[in-house]
Amino acid sequence: MELPHVKLELSGAEISGNLDERNPPICLPNQPSDASLLALDIGGTLIKLVYFSGGNEGNEQIGSGNATPGGELRFVKFERRRLGDCLEFIKSKKLIHDSGIITGLSNGHVAIKATGGGAYKFADVFKEKLGVSLDKLDEMDSVVAGANFLLKKIPGESFTHMDGKRTPIEINQKNLFPYLLVNIGSGVGIIKVTGNKIFERVTGTHIGGGTIFGLAKLLTGCTSYDDFLKLSQQGDNLVLDLIVKDICGELACQKQGLSASTLASSFGKVIDSKRKLSDYRAEDLATTLLSAFTYNIAQISFLVAALLGLKRVFFGGSYIRGHASTMDNISYAIDYWSKGQMQAIFLRHEGFLGALGALMSYENLDVDDLTLEDVKEQVKLVNHLDLFTIHL
Amino acid sequence: MELPHVKLELSGAEISGNLDERNPPICLPNQPSDASLLALDIGGTLIKLVYFSGGNEGNEQIGSGNATPGGELRFVKFERRRLGDCLEFIKSKKLIHDSGIITGLSNGHVAIKATGGGAYKFADVFKEKLGVSLDKLDEMDSVVAGANFLLKKIPGESFTHMDGKRTPIEINQKNLFPYLLVNIGSGVGIIKVTGNKIFERVTGTHIGGGTIFGLAKLLTGCTSYDDFLKLSQQGDNLVLDLIVKDICGELACQKQGLSASTLASSFGKVIDSKRKLSDYRAEDLATTLLSAFTYNIAQISFLVAALLGLKRVFFGGSYIRGHASTMDNISYAIDYWSKGQMQAIFLRHEGFLGALGALMSYENLDVDDLTLEDVKEQVKLVNHLDLFTIHL
Repeated sequence: MELPHVKLELSGAEISGNLDERNPPICLPNQPSDASLLALDIGGTLIKLVYFSGGNEGNEQIGSGNATPGGELRFVKFERRRLGDCLEFIKSKKLIHDSGIITGLSNGHVAIKATGGGAYKFADVFKEKLGVSLDKLDEMDSVVAGANFLLKKIPGESFTHMDGKRTPIEINQKNLFPYLLVNIGSGVGIIKVTGNKIFERVTGTHIGGGTIFGLAKLLTGCTSYDDFLKLSQQGDNLVLDLIVKDICGELACQKQGLSASTLASSFGKVIDSKRKLSDYRAEDLATTLLSAFTYNIAQISFLVAALLGLKRVFFGGSYIRGHASTMDNISYAIDYWSKGQMQAIFLRHEGFLGALGALMSYENLDVDDLTLEDVKEQVKLVNHLDLFTIHL
Repeated sequence: MELPHVKLELSGAEISGNLDERNPPICLPNQPSDASLLALDIGGTLIKLVYFSGGNEGNEQIGSGNATPGGELRFVKFERRRLGDCLEFIKSKKLIHDSGIITGLSNGHVAIKATGGGAYKFADVFKEKLGVSLDKLDEMDSVVAGANFLLKKIPGESFTHMDGKRTPIEINQKNLFPYLLVNIGSGVGIIKVTGNKIFERVTGTHIGGGTIFGLAKLLTGCTSYDDFLKLSQQGDNLVLDLIVKDICGELACQKQGLSASTLASSFGKVIDSKRKLSDYRAEDLATTLLSAFTYNIAQISFLVAALLGLKRVFFGGSYIRGHASTMDNISYAIDYWSKGQMQAIFLRHEGFLGALGALMSYENLDVDDLTLEDVKEQVKLVNHLDLFTIHL
């Protein structure tokens, strides 16, 4: 059986839905509405799905043979331990079918583009339960392709977040590159992106979302990351954090011109206290955890950006969750350490960079302009990063 | 009453005691044995004392009027919450007395040199309980003076630590500067030292010893940092840490050439587990905590050193405690991230840099060679660090 090659038509893509919606659908007005498109990113904690839904509402038209253009990309997440729910979702939405325009093709079988470490680990499960292969893609390739697509093609995708206020950022396509991309998953990957397919995974840190949520589960007993974020909004970090005033006394801070409220040691107040874990409020523990580790991720990102001479740092990954305090902490830290010379920027589809990048790979879309300057920059970059080419 | 100025005589100083001893006494063969010398560093968690004991054994000769040269510097620590024990120790050892050569003089009163934030906070307590003033010194000045003294004057002070093996390092006095000094207290201070009194506090991190011990108390219920370190020696971090193999599967790691054992997310395995805190062994929690945060401190130190173009990073502060795994973790991380181009070096009196520096200030000792090159370097440094002059 010969199957037609899948066709992606992204011209005119734009965000549907209201401005505050998280992971809003992306309208694709020129994509044939009977197209079946699905891509996956199976990370350490979450499975992210991007799929195309023909028509403007509902999924009824999928696979109906209706070739009217129009439909939208939709974004869904599952906890990795609930893989069964994910498979059920794919079945119930009829996202894989072997008639009409199919998702992908590999040796005559339906093959779904998939990235993330779990794409390797769970390939057999997809084969067995859904009868499809996973066409496995490099994670960094996918994350960068997804970020570049969003930043170049989707108006209103990126924004800054300071003091609780979200401000849309217009990216000038001409000077998008180079930028630093910090992808906060279970761990954190830090990538310098120099062009459409030119990037270097500079470094990373093992203290990422998995660390925050892992410690949160142990310390507060919370069972979901969203519950943890809710707790963190109601807590007071000064119950556990040691600030400069606690060490010097307020008067001495004034005399010495020290900022009394500066954080000296996260969780440092616990040391001198007789209180046990059960004597602390879950809310205070959550707030302290979140600020300790978001500041740490921001500090490492700042140091790497300074080392590479970059002023713009984009933060993505599933652990931001559109959460105001997380973004405020990151923005504050980047601003503080850089003395206002660097800017933290966030993405509305932060958690779906890899999945979107995997989707892009159905067609070799994102190669519009690899200039001589890009190539020169890449050569310089490789020399520069000699100290840094590590794989955490 | 006119009192003679205190006299420090450090010529011929060397470490007494065996090579494995922690915080060994430093023999001062030419210091008059009746000298009374005491200096303090009151940090966020600990009070560090350095004092001079005349004669080679015991303290009986202190203040006895015996002016034969010889004696040793001794090093003692108290938890800050046990300030009373510290005051009692000072009394019982007769470290302050107003006859003979006194500790220090300020407006006709006995004044002890003291640094650390607590020197401000607890000045009144010392006045009330011991009748002495605290002559308060800048903490960074003191830490740097202490480090420079040890590195320049004390043979056998510094060493590397890899795979459980300690190797003494001979410092070439001629090219000691510049170096990076990472002081791990409750928080972490990171200082570029360019000359005897030329340095810049480059940055720091709020995730320091206070964070490790604070979380250790909450998670394991341990009551002392030394108990925590003991626990950490008997644990397995793979019970809680997510490594690359856990995400991809072992076979896929092999296929992709990934290092299966690379740490991806500290505490990341907790997320998918149904186990509660009480289901984990304290030993495993301790090991995971220690490695997560020592790697993090080392990574930030590496990034700062790379940014400043420094190859030698000295680690001090009270949280190292001569602990083999702590030093191994730091050494491994610095070696790994720098691809062997940087070296982590430790100090036998790691926890007493500030207290020693305070002691040095009784006489303006450490000013032997401020060259033109040092001054030029300083000017360059200040320009370079424009992004970095922060006070965490």
